[in-house]
Amino acid sequence: MQQKQVHYSDYLQLDKILNAQVLESDLLQQHAHDEMLFIVIHQAYELWFKQLLYEVDSVAAIMQKPALNDNSPELQTVVHRLNRTVTILKVLVHQIDIMETMTPMDFLDFRDMLRPASGFQSWQFKLVEAKLGLKYQQRHAQEYYISQLRQEHIDIIRRVESEKSFIELLNAWLERMPFFEEGENWKHYKPVSGAPAAGGNDPFWADYRAIYSGGLAEAEQSNQQYFDTVFSDGSSPAQEGRQLSPRACRAALFIMLYRGYPILQLPFQLLNSLLEIDEQLSTWRYRHMSMVHRMIGTRIGTGGSTGRDYLKGALDKHYIFAEIARLTSFLIERRKLPVLSPEMEKRLGFVG
Amino acid sequence: MQQKQVHYSDYLQLDKILNAQVLESDLLQQHAHDEMLFIVIHQAYELWFKQLLYEVDSVAAIMQKPALNDNSPELQTVVHRLNRTVTILKVLVHQIDIMETMTPMDFLDFRDMLRPASGFQSWQFKLVEAKLGLKYQQRHAQEYYISQLRQEHIDIIRRVESEKSFIELLNAWLERMPFFEEGENWKHYKPVSGAPAAGGNDPFWADYRAIYSGGLAEAEQSNQQYFDTVFSDGSSPAQEGRQLSPRACRAALFIMLYRGYPILQLPFQLLNSLLEIDEQLSTWRYRHMSMVHRMIGTRIGTGGSTGRDYLKGALDKHYIFAEIARLTSFLIERRKLPVLSPEMEKRLGFVG
Amino acid sequence: MQQKQVHYSDYLQLDKILNAQVLESDLLQQHAHDEMLFIVIHQAYELWFKQLLYEVDSVAAIMQKPALNDNSPELQTVVHRLNRTVTILKVLVHQIDIMETMTPMDFLDFRDMLRPASGFQSWQFKLVEAKLGLKYQQRHAQEYYISQLRQEHIDIIRRVESEKSFIELLNAWLERMPFFEEGENWKHYKPVSGAPAAGGNDPFWADYRAIYSGGLAEAEQSNQQYFDTVFSDGSSPAQEGRQLSPRACRAALFIMLYRGYPILQLPFQLLNSLLEIDEQLSTWRYRHMSMVHRMIGTRIGTGGSTGRDYLKGALDKHYIFAEIARLTSFLIERRKLPVLSPEMEKRLGFVG
Amino acid sequence: MQQKQVHYSDYLQLDKILNAQVLESDLLQQHAHDEMLFIVIHQAYELWFKQLLYEVDSVAAIMQKPALNDNSPELQTVVHRLNRTVTILKVLVHQIDIMETMTPMDFLDFRDMLRPASGFQSWQFKLVEAKLGLKYQQRHAQEYYISQLRQEHIDIIRRVESEKSFIELLNAWLERMPFFEEGENWKHYKPVSGAPAAGGNDPFWADYRAIYSGGLAEAEQSNQQYFDTVFSDGSSPAQEGRQLSPRACRAALFIMLYRGYPILQLPFQLLNSLLEIDEQLSTWRYRHMSMVHRMIGTRIGTGGSTGRDYLKGALDKHYIFAEIARLTSFLIERRKLPVLSPEMEKRLGFVG
Repeated sequence: MQQKQVHYSDYLQLDKILNAQVLESDLLQQHAHDEMLFIVIHQAYELWFKQLLYEVDSVAAIMQKPALNDNSPELQTVVHRLNRTVTILKVLVHQIDIMETMTPMDFLDFRDMLRPASGFQSWQFKLVEAKLGLKYQQRHAQEYYISQLRQEHIDIIRRVESEKSFIELLNAWLERMPFFEEGENWKHYKPVSGAPAAGGNDPFWADYRAIYSGGLAEAEQSNQQYFDTVFSDGSSPAQEGRQLSPRACRAALFIMLYRGYPILQLPFQLLNSLLEIDEQLSTWRYRHMSMVHRMIGTRIGTGGSTGRDYLKGALDKHYIFAEIARLTSFLIERRKLPVLSPEMEKRLGFVG
Repeated sequence: MQQKQVHYSDYLQLDKILNAQVLESDLLQQHAHDEMLFIVIHQAYELWFKQLLYEVDSVAAIMQKPALNDNSPELQTVVHRLNRTVTILKVLVHQIDIMETMTPMDFLDFRDMLRPASGFQSWQFKLVEAKLGLKYQQRHAQEYYISQLRQEHIDIIRRVESEKSFIELLNAWLERMPFFEEGENWKHYKPVSGAPAAGGNDPFWADYRAIYSGGLAEAEQSNQQYFDTVFSDGSSPAQEGRQLSPRACRAALFIMLYRGYPILQLPFQLLNSLLEIDEQLSTWRYRHMSMVHRMIGTRIGTGGSTGRDYLKGALDKHYIFAEIARLTSFLIERRKLPVLSPEMEKRLGFVG
Repeated sequence: MQQKQVHYSDYLQLDKILNAQVLESDLLQQHAHDEMLFIVIHQAYELWFKQLLYEVDSVAAIMQKPALNDNSPELQTVVHRLNRTVTILKVLVHQIDIMETMTPMDFLDFRDMLRPASGFQSWQFKLVEAKLGLKYQQRHAQEYYISQLRQEHIDIIRRVESEKSFIELLNAWLERMPFFEEGENWKHYKPVSGAPAAGGNDPFWADYRAIYSGGLAEAEQSNQQYFDTVFSDGSSPAQEGRQLSPRACRAALFIMLYRGYPILQLPFQLLNSLLEIDEQLSTWRYRHMSMVHRMIGTRIGTGGSTGRDYLKGALDKHYIFAEIARLTSFLIERRKLPVLSPEMEKRLGFVG
Repeated sequence: MQQKQVHYSDYLQLDKILNAQVLESDLLQQHAHDEMLFIVIHQAYELWFKQLLYEVDSVAAIMQKPALNDNSPELQTVVHRLNRTVTILKVLVHQIDIMETMTPMDFLDFRDMLRPASGFQSWQFKLVEAKLGLKYQQRHAQEYYISQLRQEHIDIIRRVESEKSFIELLNAWLERMPFFEEGENWKHYKPVSGAPAAGGNDPFWADYRAIYSGGLAEAEQSNQQYFDTVFSDGSSPAQEGRQLSPRACRAALFIMLYRGYPILQLPFQLLNSLLEIDEQLSTWRYRHMSMVHRMIGTRIGTGGSTGRDYLKGALDKHYIFAEIARLTSFLIERRKLPVLSPEMEKRLGFVG
């Protein structure tokens, strides 16, 4: 059978893409040159948001499989696509440079014509955040946020919020890492500190806690309590306000500490790519906020908000993988690390 | 009268934009994950190409006005929009990073399904080149280029090629710069070298030619002949194979040399932005070529070309403002510049 | 006389530059690979800080001349060098990507060996801020900041703080812009609103205030009071806590509003480049803060600070040209702008 | 024992770094403002070149170990540091933006004072190329290149050229990859095509060759011969003009094809990072060439070369990992890949 002939313009549906720019200022017969840029850049952003959703969905689908660590190429795929997400976000940050070629006076030429439309109505970006793990109650200015969206989009986001987010899948994956099952590895571990067991029953973490405590300066003592909160088993899977359980946190910290072992190399890359995603999202929010401030100052945005203040509030609260980031506080120097037994080392490596 | 309510999704026609991605691999029931990226990135490129065309059209419209140099804000607008074009091109170059997250093996999953579509079928990019000033006969591999396009797009490009391009408008603008009309300025100029007049009848250029010649090293003598070709008046407005006339070239060089005078500041910025556009276009072609090579090696592209070789041929030939760039060869040190008379200086400044 | 022969290595003093890396971890015989990167990147930053100081000094020297606006190329030079400063800052922001290739575990290998050295001891960066206009009392955590520096560097910064900063020179330059001298221009202005004079005695600003007020939404009324604070003449040159006088602010706003006139084009570019400098400085601080957080979490920095909190405090307070940025709040649509008289327009243009 | 107190300025030897800028134009009492930038940017480049050498040396030291693939963290370290090299090169490319803020006229102010110094005298960059694998005879314009360097630097480069370069170490590492030893794996492979053995004696490559040939279009037949050249064993370890042996090439292609298996994941990342290094080096050379052209046009460089032509010649010839890049031409679609036996799959995975 003959495959059909594909043409670039049809394949990319350029008739749709290139005919989707109608300027309000033209409709009102007051042509404002820069409105075209305003439309095109937002469309470009939305195209990329669609791609981000597509990638996040695809990695979530993989993370949902129960047997992810078996000898499959899938963890590699997860890392690869998360790194792609980072690369896309870097271009989205850079793209703000283009928006900044629009001066405030040029924006004023058509700004009032857009009311009450607003960038806050970009439900796709909110969906990206929700899929990664940002909960409704963690959001800054929740009511305002809801008031800006159409019911159909609120419904989509709500449904996503009720499903397992990426960070929840990550938590489950960390919890079931085969290396960490009870009794299997730790029985080979030779305790050194004689410290009482903490963070579960195994002596490894008791040793680790003792070494960590010994290295804390006086002014850092609050980290000690935080350590116990993060790593010691409580009754609930993850404590109030946290999305990662003590068991998952122990696994994540272990990965950071012993990342050199073959079986931990990709898991380490995965954790690292999540921190990069958060950093790029955060840089994007920051530059976006600065740009809005530069564009409208202390005036009210087209959607009725004091745009910059909303964005500023989101800056601190919308970190999604903050619990991973904070594990950095609990690292100790490589030369002080508890020594693993040969049996453990073997299990962390390739077939000999 | 109540203005109608605008909503973000409607305003941006997101129903069109976000529903224009149909994967060939899905139609053939062999889903290839990375095809979505392939579609989205090309659509993003085409959106930005539309914006580039829009900006180039707008500056060409301004350059067409006969009285551009009168006290109007329009030259500023030209410079501003050309700088925006540079900023957009920088993001387009950066965007190649995203494409490079697709490995050759991932591309192979759907590459054959796209035949005979090809990036060479992007008529918008060719239109950008044509509007700026690239002629059909200057193009590398002309027949191949024609064979890839639909008749309707060939017609559009041909029509544009028959109209005044930006570089032709630039030539006209440089030729009629008010400062350079015969007799008006140069009569105040005090010749120093006693060299015979060159490049028109005025003694300024005779002096300049003498100073320039004196600074050439032996190995650079070929520049002398090139100097005379570029600057001395011949019968035709611009010599065979050139798009800028001697008169226009003299104006452009004068702007570079005496850019400090108020009336020359924006003209200098304009010339500079054109060189930046060429450089970004060229960087884009170069990275594009490298990316294609990395993706398909020495295989034949989906459109039937040896992709990389075509792109490589374009690299050297598609400089649009090369004649401006080469004027750099004719600069002399500031401290050797012919001194202008007070009358001339006055005409180059603001109202006193 | 024969000019001496210059060699690349001697000219660049590469013997000094390339032999200035001694690793503490080597001295302690515990070689930590990444310490070399740590040293080199900080040296690269300090080289660029030296260049920033050099450029800021050079533009300040120009701004100090009393007759800057006469037909000289110098304002162009100021804009050019400020734009270079922006370009350098963009690379400095990008350079953080390199630092982020150092993982927290790799940093731990030598972190303790550096105490009590700290990035806060970079006096050159503080000097850049001080020269631009950041006052000691505006700084976040002043005592900590002083405690980190050597007396000789404190002395340098103090001396700079006592001299005219760039923003003060800017204020003086704006105040004496020739276009704004009393009686000269405004006598030709035809008032329209009949509003009582505000912001000095001239009717132009009375009109402007009336138009601006008419466009404010109810929720934006606080801008009205702020408008009067910023623009109306008080007794002191600049009010408490402000570095720009009402007269200078009026000139700056006028430049933004009527930037199209030839004489205002470079002044507009100058104001714009200052906003870009602030934005890049701010992006640098933000990414720097994120990077420190990612590197040490909630631990204490080598210099004894909770690094991230200090940096976070600086984020909001260290905007230098915030008063320029906030003028954006006072713009009105182009089509509502008061019409200037032909006499005024003539004075804003080139020689006819 | 008390550790000594470290101070930022001493640690970074800022007295050396910040006092190594002496302007020739100052010595000649003709201060040229932009010469400072010229010095500082070259010093920044040389600092980073030193870092590149340091990283390349460190990965070469690891690659030299005979037992690299045993369960050690070292391959991860190699990949990590090569990726850092890429990150550094990206900043070096970006840094050209700063150089481009120097206009040709500004360069002319001090250009002649630098003769005969020239960027070609940067021996560190040549050393980076040599350490990675660029041979003297592969260099463009070899005599010119030698004529520019001091004997001591020529000696250093020559010595490096006589040692094992990174690409030679890579070749050895690929050749001895444990998976590929004769008889061990391939005996489990089930041949399908019945094609005669090629590329060694094993039936896997005979099958692969048959599948590959079947997918070649008529115009691509030259790839077939190239395939046999690259993969089939000849007498010498690597054929004339090649740095990778057929055995090493087979290993590299196998890694690209089956990169999903755990044991191949890092080797794939390693190959990929080498292609990125080449691409960044090449982009750097391209932008450097464009910048030189823009700066001096067709004039002779300070070192006596027609700068741009030299740089242009290097562009095509100085690819170091071109043999890896060209393997892309030999990929086949994933769904056509020969199926590995369970025994082989097991050897490609982690401990079960």
